[in-house]
Amino acid sequence: MSEQDMSSSQPQESKSISPYGPARSTVKGEPLTKEEIQKYNDFFKASLYLSLGMIYLRSNPLLTTPLDKSHFKARLLGHFGSAPGQIFTYMHFNRLIKKYDLDAIFISGPGHGAPAVLSQAYLEGTYSEVYPECSEDEEGLRKFFKQFSFPGGIGSHATPETPGSLHEGGELGYSISHAFGAVFDNPDLIAVTMVGDGEAETGPLATSWHSTKFLNPITDGAVLPILHLNGYKINNPTILARISHGELESLFKGYGYQPYFVEGDDVETMHQAMAATLEHCVLEIRRFQQQARSTGKAFRPMWPVVILRSPKGWTGPRKINEGKNYLEGYWRSHQVPLTDVHNNPEHLALLESWMKSYEPERLFAANGGRISAELRQELCPAGNRRMSANPVANGGILQKPLRMPDFRDYALKVDHPAVTLEGSMANMAKLLRDIMSLNPTNFRLFGPDETESNKLGNVYEVAKKVWMGEYFEEDANGGNLAPEGRVMEMLSEHTCEGWLEGYLLSGRHGLLNSYEPFIHVIDSMVNQHCKWLEKSLEVSWRHPIPSLNILLTAVVWRQDHNGFTHQDPGFLDVVANKSPEVVRIYLPPDGNCLLSVTDHCLRSSNYVNVIVADKQPHLQFLPMDQAIVHCTKGIGIWPSFSSCPPSTSPDLVMASCGDISTQESLAAISLLLDHFPTLKIRCVNVVDLFKLISHEEHPHGLTSTEYTSLFTEDKPVIFNFHSYPWLVYRLTHGRRNVENMVVKGYREKGNIDTPLELAIRNGTDRFSLAMEAIDRLSEGPGGVLKGKGGMAREELRNEQLRCQGLAFEFGIDPAEITSWTWPRERGGLWSERHHV
Amino acid sequence: MSEQDMSSSQPQESKSISPYGPARSTVKGEPLTKEEIQKYNDFFKASLYLSLGMIYLRSNPLLTTPLDKSHFKARLLGHFGSAPGQIFTYMHFNRLIKKYDLDAIFISGPGHGAPAVLSQAYLEGTYSEVYPECSEDEEGLRKFFKQFSFPGGIGSHATPETPGSLHEGGELGYSISHAFGAVFDNPDLIAVTMVGDGEAETGPLATSWHSTKFLNPITDGAVLPILHLNGYKINNPTILARISHGELESLFKGYGYQPYFVEGDDVETMHQAMAATLEHCVLEIRRFQQQARSTGKAFRPMWPVVILRSPKGWTGPRKINEGKNYLEGYWRSHQVPLTDVHNNPEHLALLESWMKSYEPERLFAANGGRISAELRQELCPAGNRRMSANPVANGGILQKPLRMPDFRDYALKVDHPAVTLEGSMANMAKLLRDIMSLNPTNFRLFGPDETESNKLGNVYEVAKKVWMGEYFEEDANGGNLAPEGRVMEMLSEHTCEGWLEGYLLSGRHGLLNSYEPFIHVIDSMVNQHCKWLEKSLEVSWRHPIPSLNILLTAVVWRQDHNGFTHQDPGFLDVVANKSPEVVRIYLPPDGNCLLSVTDHCLRSSNYVNVIVADKQPHLQFLPMDQAIVHCTKGIGIWPSFSSCPPSTSPDLVMASCGDISTQESLAAISLLLDHFPTLKIRCVNVVDLFKLISHEEHPHGLTSTEYTSLFTEDKPVIFNFHSYPWLVYRLTHGRRNVENMVVKGYREKGNIDTPLELAIRNGTDRFSLAMEAIDRLSEGPGGVLKGKGGMAREELRNEQLRCQGLAFEFGIDPAEITSWTWPRERGGLWSERHHV
Repeated sequence: MSEQDMSSSQPQESKSISPYGPARSTVKGEPLTKEEIQKYNDFFKASLYLSLGMIYLRSNPLLTTPLDKSHFKARLLGHFGSAPGQIFTYMHFNRLIKKYDLDAIFISGPGHGAPAVLSQAYLEGTYSEVYPECSEDEEGLRKFFKQFSFPGGIGSHATPETPGSLHEGGELGYSISHAFGAVFDNPDLIAVTMVGDGEAETGPLATSWHSTKFLNPITDGAVLPILHLNGYKINNPTILARISHGELESLFKGYGYQPYFVEGDDVETMHQAMAATLEHCVLEIRRFQQQARSTGKAFRPMWPVVILRSPKGWTGPRKINEGKNYLEGYWRSHQVPLTDVHNNPEHLALLESWMKSYEPERLFAANGGRISAELRQELCPAGNRRMSANPVANGGILQKPLRMPDFRDYALKVDHPAVTLEGSMANMAKLLRDIMSLNPTNFRLFGPDETESNKLGNVYEVAKKVWMGEYFEEDANGGNLAPEGRVMEMLSEHTCEGWLEGYLLSGRHGLLNSYEPFIHVIDSMVNQHCKWLEKSLEVSWRHPIPSLNILLTAVVWRQDHNGFTHQDPGFLDVVANKSPEVVRIYLPPDGNCLLSVTDHCLRSSNYVNVIVADKQPHLQFLPMDQAIVHCTKGIGIWPSFSSCPPSTSPDLVMASCGDISTQESLAAISLLLDHFPTLKIRCVNVVDLFKLISHEEHPHGLTSTEYTSLFTEDKPVIFNFHSYPWLVYRLTHGRRNVENMVVKGYREKGNIDTPLELAIRNGTDRFSLAMEAIDRLSEGPGGVLKGKGGMAREELRNEQLRCQGLAFEFGIDPAEITSWTWPRERGGLWSERHHV
Repeated sequence: MSEQDMSSSQPQESKSISPYGPARSTVKGEPLTKEEIQKYNDFFKASLYLSLGMIYLRSNPLLTTPLDKSHFKARLLGHFGSAPGQIFTYMHFNRLIKKYDLDAIFISGPGHGAPAVLSQAYLEGTYSEVYPECSEDEEGLRKFFKQFSFPGGIGSHATPETPGSLHEGGELGYSISHAFGAVFDNPDLIAVTMVGDGEAETGPLATSWHSTKFLNPITDGAVLPILHLNGYKINNPTILARISHGELESLFKGYGYQPYFVEGDDVETMHQAMAATLEHCVLEIRRFQQQARSTGKAFRPMWPVVILRSPKGWTGPRKINEGKNYLEGYWRSHQVPLTDVHNNPEHLALLESWMKSYEPERLFAANGGRISAELRQELCPAGNRRMSANPVANGGILQKPLRMPDFRDYALKVDHPAVTLEGSMANMAKLLRDIMSLNPTNFRLFGPDETESNKLGNVYEVAKKVWMGEYFEEDANGGNLAPEGRVMEMLSEHTCEGWLEGYLLSGRHGLLNSYEPFIHVIDSMVNQHCKWLEKSLEVSWRHPIPSLNILLTAVVWRQDHNGFTHQDPGFLDVVANKSPEVVRIYLPPDGNCLLSVTDHCLRSSNYVNVIVADKQPHLQFLPMDQAIVHCTKGIGIWPSFSSCPPSTSPDLVMASCGDISTQESLAAISLLLDHFPTLKIRCVNVVDLFKLISHEEHPHGLTSTEYTSLFTEDKPVIFNFHSYPWLVYRLTHGRRNVENMVVKGYREKGNIDTPLELAIRNGTDRFSLAMEAIDRLSEGPGGVLKGKGGMAREELRNEQLRCQGLAFEFGIDPAEITSWTWPRERGGLWSERHHV
């Protein structure tokens, strides 16, 4: 390798942006012998043959008889276009894994890239080890082909069934952030990451290049991105393949990478160029790591990026349809390259000659349907060094349980319920801090620049924010930045989520904190992760991975200062639509419940856990022992806030879910009891939202009997909910007594409000709830308050108006309103009076 | 200006990344006289004074008495950090508007930048014109201050109440895409677009820089981005402010811009640098436009971008708290810069001296509380040239109705219902094509590389895809690319949506087409647009803008080939949570309904219209006249597919919503009638989803009587729904007879399925629906099929199994399955037999 010309910053010989011609590359050198080139040619052909076979064949897998339409699947599906470039990269990286005994995974970013990685997994032998029915013989190959994009089979992405995959790529844009997530705290790992030039146009991908500003070369591994300028998307050229060479080079230097170009379509020279370039990149990576590790000084080098420009559908026919249409090097090769093989003899003949050009007889049939053992041995790594078998991509295998302190040690003292104001979130931050301290290489906290704002700043005592950018003098004055930090903050929810997913998928633990409204930014990412988890449950060899924990705060009811744009609690609706096997939603009502729920979530596997909790100081309701019982049950009657024993049939159920909603509901109970001391009120609180749904729909769901034992068969239920009210209606659909349930929650209406005013407008404040209860209790022949509620209602309304007036006069201050409307004696007295 | 040194590509004198020091700028020159500098200083101070006043004061607006805490709002809210740089840019651009009579708008990207634009609008006089109560005197100023971030007042973003704003910026990331959307087809417009360095970290913003590849300098205006390296986000440094000068310069050259730096904190030299730089940029823009327009040759120049590096909280105190903490040039100046003015005498004194340093006595009090007329006249443009008064930012004013062909002319012929297969989408594409032809500067079609795949390719006959990248020879072979195109395709849903929003907000029309599953990518953008519309309804001077039309196709039921990752119909849940005043959801069951619905949506204003329709060939149900009636009603009984007259009480209601769901429901009716010819089945179809909800909740909702007249008081309802079933439960909550309604829809479970198998797994196929109906009709004492359903049920199950077997054997082919299970005679016969 010493002959290589490393002077990458020298002017390029050619600035052509054509994918055609002999190889043009930044790194010079011819590391391969003629014999080696021959072997790489064979391996390339074998893999390309498998890729076409997957797309077309359900029989005759070795083309031992002349191809005819009975051999084809009835409906042709799958994508060829990006396969050649991906295969080319994969197999050339294998050379370096063998040469340098590298620990590497392959992340396939381009859309529908599965034929590339499936064919490589099959050629490496991993596929048949994992799926013995797809054996390495003609019949096994037939099954391997037929199952692809076929009913009951496997998809056209690198789905969870794909050995070596931790990135499905169905939705594009997350390959780089997943890759970085996987290499954090994996100092010896290289994530070879193929980035499609289509994918590269997405926002999430475009900003994720900046991940290098958060990668510490001492403690983290490396990502080697290969931007594949494949030229086309489904039906359009790609932007990055159609800008000048100079712009492209500048772009990646601007992103902080040293770009190494490999461009052309001449296979032989491309072999040399790719081999030399990848080797140079690996040596660069090792040099940077060595420098940082030997000096102990973390720095941010210009990490290498390979820019591979090759024709889409490379090695396929350049033109089809009697020379009228471009195929290779055009978007027509994106999906099924020859679409009409069933009916068009030209297509059939062209496909046959094309497939035969990959020499299946010599490469497969001559060895009983498998690649020769010699070729495999010489070109592929062995065992877990195969990228298709690297345990990192089945991260559950590597998972180590978190070391957890006892969350009870962080309990808030609650002598009298609903009397003391404490910051539940700030308190929970101490638990997080100690978890981070106990797990210095196995847990990270993620968030888009909101960790401090979300009152989690306590974690900085033990874990700074990772920062590999420049430092200024003022950073020492509360900046909490360090190259060896553990908190990951970038103003991109996409990147934070992608990092966390990559970190979890490779077997580590973490938590994302975000403002509630802007978590919608990553709706689709969370959807995709849910789908990955759901599908993984069906894949026997996949081990459970740590749950994706999402902590939502800066909640809708306290977004008065940010206003209407920051008011959207609807992420729960998105999550609730996902498979019940993988989603969990918790709304802890107070600080001790938040501790209990967080502990539970961080210990769990294979879920997406969503925790919703406000970050401001709040009244505390339950002592720790009661909080644990309540969170374990997920839903229950709170005797301390009920005016009748749980066994008694109440006049009214006051239910709540969410910390602020609970506080208002309890205050409403208090107001009602002021006016009607003998009213039998049952207080029900929900922590685990899926308790509301039938146990037939979700494993956490209550049975009908359990549900009715809480919500009664016929009594009015006033349910104060954190989010949009319809979610409760949807979850309780089919339950008894829903016709008597009124759900109050957030509805869209823009204004700059005090928290109180916002609640009043939505009917979720204590006064509105109490008035609603009076109205319901005054209805019908059996209405227990019939004719008695008028004066109380009027007093409540006046008090509500008085509070509104105060807020409008003096501005927005929830603490002021809270302390003013919630007499501190009430909780204690009441608790003693009603406790059963 | 001729003295300016235009050699921007020359080496910079300094590569410092500090925001401090005398101005360092790419463009040299001192275009301002000493007197002018003095005026800009005054104007800068006046605006900064107003910004602080908004944050702090509820009285004593001119500091005519010594500042004390009674003058403060009780709760201090608002953000100062980005205001100085934004104000600086705004006022220096005003000079060029006046000098060159420019048509310009200002887009404020940084978070919470409202004080900057509000203060400028006030100084330009626009604010008091629009809101006379905020008059230009002491009392008006007091109101102007107090209302900011105050209950009942205005928010801290550039909300719809802000004159001159078409970009709120509550959620970050869309300033550049909004700006480009606004200048498309606005050849004389310049969108001066301030981009925050926090915002710049988001994915959507990072990729939106590439918008220049879609901007035609002949027919479009220009965006002048000013990247504001303000240095800090809420609590972190920003990436772009902490990379090397060279990287930053490369990044923007790579994005295709010529970067012009203006860096420093020395106000006087910064005035000169900013004035010279902005002027150079304007002249560059005009030169490029002139070159393209005079030659008729569109090209993509290196458009200018200004990189303004100034300290956060610029002109504030550098240190506070007895010199212990940095304020200016640090994240502490992000929000309320001095937080403890109520209690901390140091803060109070510091604030007073700081505010007085802006000379309110001289600049305001001396003129009766207003800026001097002379200063305004010399520095501000007049009338609509003021950026705060530009009608483009109140685009409804400029809105011209679309020229629409008669959609009836595109009707699909339906002689016999449910007999002919046609591509509803491909047919609708002809309507779209002709709309594009009739509105060559007023309508654009947007989509992320899926327009052709979505069967809308017909539009290319009259409107190519905009492409300003390089061209290759193969592009002439079906590329459909042109600089003067009208179809906007980039593989970024965020950018497409942002462009469309900008285009609509400035008063033009458009439609976004997308795969259904990946529309979740822009959940949060659509949320924000809904909120903008909702709030705009309350702003009397805002004119209605054309609706945001979103066409969703490649729907969940036909995502067999792409698999599980592409199966998510839940966008409707997100939309349904938004304000009923602004959201509409349509699921046209066939081609004529799709035409009618599309026509309706494109003519509407101030809505977000979501249309869900599959792109594959489908059975056609309604002739055009019936389709119009059906779509106008939005929901109704289909007598042709019912076996009893509408006035008759049926045994069973078979309801459906969505094209594929409707087809299966009709087929189930057919199967049921095969087995039970005398069964009284009512067929109900829903086009307008909000018909299901109560009219008290949504203006389209049915009254109880209307609802019951369709869904009966007590008969079984089998509802086949396009999306997740719970959405129907949520919408029909509280309706009569919901306990007898079974909703079938999509549920998450990953597999590679035929469409039939997917439907079977969800119970949405014809067989499952028919069996479900038999089960329901066999229940209870009044079950009309009690004891009679067994044999039919068994036959249906066997037929279902036979179809499953075929699919598994031969692969995935919906058309095959469809034509096989839907006898062509059935529709006709049946229609004649049952038509009433």
